Amino acid sequence: MRSTFVTAALVAIPAYTLADPLPSWNDTDAKAAIIAFVDSVTDPDADSFVPVEDRIATFDNDGTLWAEQPVYFQGLYALDILREKAEADPSILSSDVLQAANEGDMEGIMAGGMEGLIEIINVSHAGITPEDFKASAHEWLTTATHPSSGMTYADMTYQPMVELLRYLRDEDFKTYIVSGGGVDFIRAIADEAYGIPPWQVVGSEGNTSYSVESGTPTVTKDGGVSFVDDKEGKPVGIMRHIGQRPIFVAGNSDGDFAMLEWATAGDGPRFGLIVHHTDGEREFAYDREGHIGVLDRGLDEAEDRGWALVDMANDWSRVWTGEQ
Amino acid sequence: MRSTFVTAALVAIPAYTLADPLPSWNDTDAKAAIIAFVDSVTDPDADSFVPVEDRIATFDNDGTLWAEQPVYFQGLYALDILREKAEADPSILSSDVLQAANEGDMEGIMAGGMEGLIEIINVSHAGITPEDFKASAHEWLTTATHPSSGMTYADMTYQPMVELLRYLRDEDFKTYIVSGGGVDFIRAIADEAYGIPPWQVVGSEGNTSYSVESGTPTVTKDGGVSFVDDKEGKPVGIMRHIGQRPIFVAGNSDGDFAMLEWATAGDGPRFGLIVHHTDGEREFAYDREGHIGVLDRGLDEAEDRGWALVDMANDWSRVWTGEQ
Repeated sequence: MRSTFVTAALVAIPAYTLADPLPSWNDTDAKAAIIAFVDSVTDPDADSFVPVEDRIATFDNDGTLWAEQPVYFQGLYALDILREKAEADPSILSSDVLQAANEGDMEGIMAGGMEGLIEIINVSHAGITPEDFKASAHEWLTTATHPSSGMTYADMTYQPMVELLRYLRDEDFKTYIVSGGGVDFIRAIADEAYGIPPWQVVGSEGNTSYSVESGTPTVTKDGGVSFVDDKEGKPVGIMRHIGQRPIFVAGNSDGDFAMLEWATAGDGPRFGLIVHHTDGEREFAYDREGHIGVLDRGLDEAEDRGWALVDMANDWSRVWTGEQ
Repeated sequence: MRSTFVTAALVAIPAYTLADPLPSWNDTDAKAAIIAFVDSVTDPDADSFVPVEDRIATFDNDGTLWAEQPVYFQGLYALDILREKAEADPSILSSDVLQAANEGDMEGIMAGGMEGLIEIINVSHAGITPEDFKASAHEWLTTATHPSSGMTYADMTYQPMVELLRYLRDEDFKTYIVSGGGVDFIRAIADEAYGIPPWQVVGSEGNTSYSVESGTPTVTKDGGVSFVDDKEGKPVGIMRHIGQRPIFVAGNSDGDFAMLEWATAGDGPRFGLIVHHTDGEREFAYDREGHIGVLDRGLDEAEDRGWALVDMANDWSRVWTGEQ
């Protein structure tokens, strides 16, 4: 027999929470705006209805789907692999910038400029097949730990954003990552972390070549950078890979401004979302200043452009997928 | 009451024709090999079973999904648009190679080399948004007619290959085009002609940029060639866009050799298919020699490599989607 306590509890729960698609979002304006938008484009009787083939959603990765402090995770990976390789074979430290990287000397790294950074990245990202690279990145992301949180990097994805991705897919959106980070690095974990298959990851690209090595057909990462999928590169990367303007876009920094500006200028209903890093307690608090994830123009213009500014401290009841 | 004639007819039909997935293929070895492969990778009880997420199929376009004689359709489009523009404004014919193109002087065009070809292509392919370009290409493909067949170019897709694409999708394959042709040109018609959405078209790419023009966020095709998705570029293009090695690959020329070689060298069941242009009556007969679609090494090595050589004259009961 059901107790009256249980019955009362069931009655007391508002109807919508029975199917809350975004349980880690507080009941604030941001959550309401997302749900209202999704309802409006999926209602076949509404003027705002969008057919399934046009329901394209693109998400930045660093700072939008996972954390990006103190520096991009991919940079920390590159330094860890470099140190590991230098321990086995110190002769690989053949330049000032590689020595600076090995010692964690940030000023020395910066002094090398863009060429120096590519030199550092190439140690872990070149002369390797995409498959072997992804295996290495996956192992690092799931075992190495973040300097301040102590969590694995794979655990530092944002639970509310993972819920948002799943919610959109449940409503027949295609969800894409469109990141300034390297496409193979993200693909190493995207399916597991976000439910996003490799062919729905757009990112920066290095030079790649095909050859037959000792009878084995092989694709090899040759290093360097052949495409930068950041700032004005994001709309370009989207047109190259997807061939269509998204109707839902999410970012967190001015590196995402062009993607937001372009996507939300299209005809019909559009949704732009900016994750604002306001939570120094649970995550990191930063916006207009710094080396990573600067949000300045976006902060000034979000309201006028009708973009939802997500206040991490206020709008999210939980931050990490890794905390229970 | 059912007549005995109807009953007899039902009994006489072999069971498999009730659901023949490839009605425009004759009952030859090629068709049997395709069906046996698809059955083997989709049977959950077989050792050869391939999970849905690994069922990636890639198809060349020119000469594999539609015709490519007397020259690539995209080249004919470029020349038609150039003549159209020159009629309105003869001053655009500002170089020898553009004048040669306007007069259909093939020797003059060839004399311009790769730079000249890019100059010709830029007249129709540069300074335009991808959307406007696709609208122009779509109109041309569905209204201009082919010099020898008199059909529209859109009607010159191969019915047996369209059936093969549909069959694979019905068996939960993802079907991609991986073409040396321009990605936007193919996207203009791929969904309508092949049931392939823009994000499943991989092709050669021109330079593209993003800017805000008079307040309107705009992606523009700037011309030139930034990526050649042909020969060794095909495995590279596949890894960039799809991030995974396909298990089913189809091509028709040595430009597809690297894609076939790489894909069929992967672990587990693999299927390589080459369309051999043997049908001078209904289509065009060519292989080892010529300017377009040369098949030489592929013809020598197909048997040893276990690739299915599709003999168009023998294996297809119908060629064009456009004939009834």
